[in-house]
Amino acid sequence: MKKLLVASTSTIYGSGYLEYLLPTLKSFFVDVKTILFIPYARPSGISYDEYTKIAKNAFSNINIDVVGIHQFENPKEAILKAEAIFTGGGNTFELVNQLYKKHILSTLKKVLENGTPYLGTSAGSNICGVNMMNTNDMPIVYPPSFTTLGCIPFNINAHYLDPIVGSTHKGETRETRIKEFHVFNGIDVLGLREGSWLEVIGDEIILKGDLTARLFQQNKKPIELESGVKV
Amino acid sequence: MKKLLVASTSTIYGSGYLEYLLPTLKSFFVDVKTILFIPYARPSGISYDEYTKIAKNAFSNINIDVVGIHQFENPKEAILKAEAIFTGGGNTFELVNQLYKKHILSTLKKVLENGTPYLGTSAGSNICGVNMMNTNDMPIVYPPSFTTLGCIPFNINAHYLDPIVGSTHKGETRETRIKEFHVFNGIDVLGLREGSWLEVIGDEIILKGDLTARLFQQNKKPIELESGVKV
Repeated sequence: MKKLLVASTSTIYGSGYLEYLLPTLKSFFVDVKTILFIPYARPSGISYDEYTKIAKNAFSNINIDVVGIHQFENPKEAILKAEAIFTGGGNTFELVNQLYKKHILSTLKKVLENGTPYLGTSAGSNICGVNMMNTNDMPIVYPPSFTTLGCIPFNINAHYLDPIVGSTHKGETRETRIKEFHVFNGIDVLGLREGSWLEVIGDEIILKGDLTARLFQQNKKPIELESGVKV
Repeated sequence: MKKLLVASTSTIYGSGYLEYLLPTLKSFFVDVKTILFIPYARPSGISYDEYTKIAKNAFSNINIDVVGIHQFENPKEAILKAEAIFTGGGNTFELVNQLYKKHILSTLKKVLENGTPYLGTSAGSNICGVNMMNTNDMPIVYPPSFTTLGCIPFNINAHYLDPIVGSTHKGETRETRIKEFHVFNGIDVLGLREGSWLEVIGDEIILKGDLTARLFQQNKKPIELESGVKV
């Protein structure tokens, strides 16, 4: 049975890395001793080692150890044997690129479907959707495909941002970009604001955190979902 | 000899479509009677007809007619015969996708290298670079490649935005995203702010408009280029 936390962001304003999630993580990862960390998204291009250290520091607060998948000779085996898995944020294109290059996307999907507890933040959450077509990231590398895990039956727009009232900038708003997506695609998109996350237990998906989330569906008006509801 | 205008945006705040560029366009397209418009980027998903009408209205102010490439049976021939070409903004992924699908990217490159005057705005400017890896757009479709025209020897980041002072949002800034690009790529990136454009005549590229532009180079500190300088 699937057991996932799909978070918009690792960090909310004015707080440390994963800090706002620690109480949730403590009960979600109960009995877990070591988490396998997937650092491929490399925010700001930091190294796998540096990134893993950041995750390790955060999880040390709840007495869970963290090892980077790059520390294993065989990443596929590392995933198959992992007690629990965490994929951090950064660039979704590079993350997906590495998952394909290392031939581990399908392995990751398999273990998540079979119940390995999983935490994703930002890019690590985007990959839980049907495809990565609603990422905000820059296409700095060309992955072999945009198809991702499909562990939830819709796409995530992480770090969802409402249009800025009074903005003089003429670049597209997030809502406009998602509207463009729906010209070509029928998949629902959930705009998850920073501080929101999904708790996925089997086929039940619940919105968590203090904020509402914005659900975009093709040819429909977007709706706001209240925290606590099933998505 | 190449003759291109590569603009960050079609529209600046508080002004009509292409309005701020009209005096420049009038002299740049002198003696041009009809411009071929490439509407493939479809901002907000509007139709090719609707989009072409918007371009036609703007150019009517300087007595130039506009025809959409979709009105021709053979888009390759339309490009080869065009007096001048304008590619409008919207979604860069879909624009590049269509250029590949219709097998006209190389034709477009050829006529631009041979001197057909060209205007690009936003997505239409992104494609003038080496590749589209510095677009801000959402990957709503999967194009066969990210390689673009390479009519200028660097990439464009259109609608360049400085980090917002005091922002509480934890999504990556534009500068962070470009820094991530330079972990994997050596190509220079020019952050063109709204209201800036490049005038490309042969191999000479001049920054135009009132603002400075921000040049990002791998392993170097970004620098601000003054309007009027050669890039």
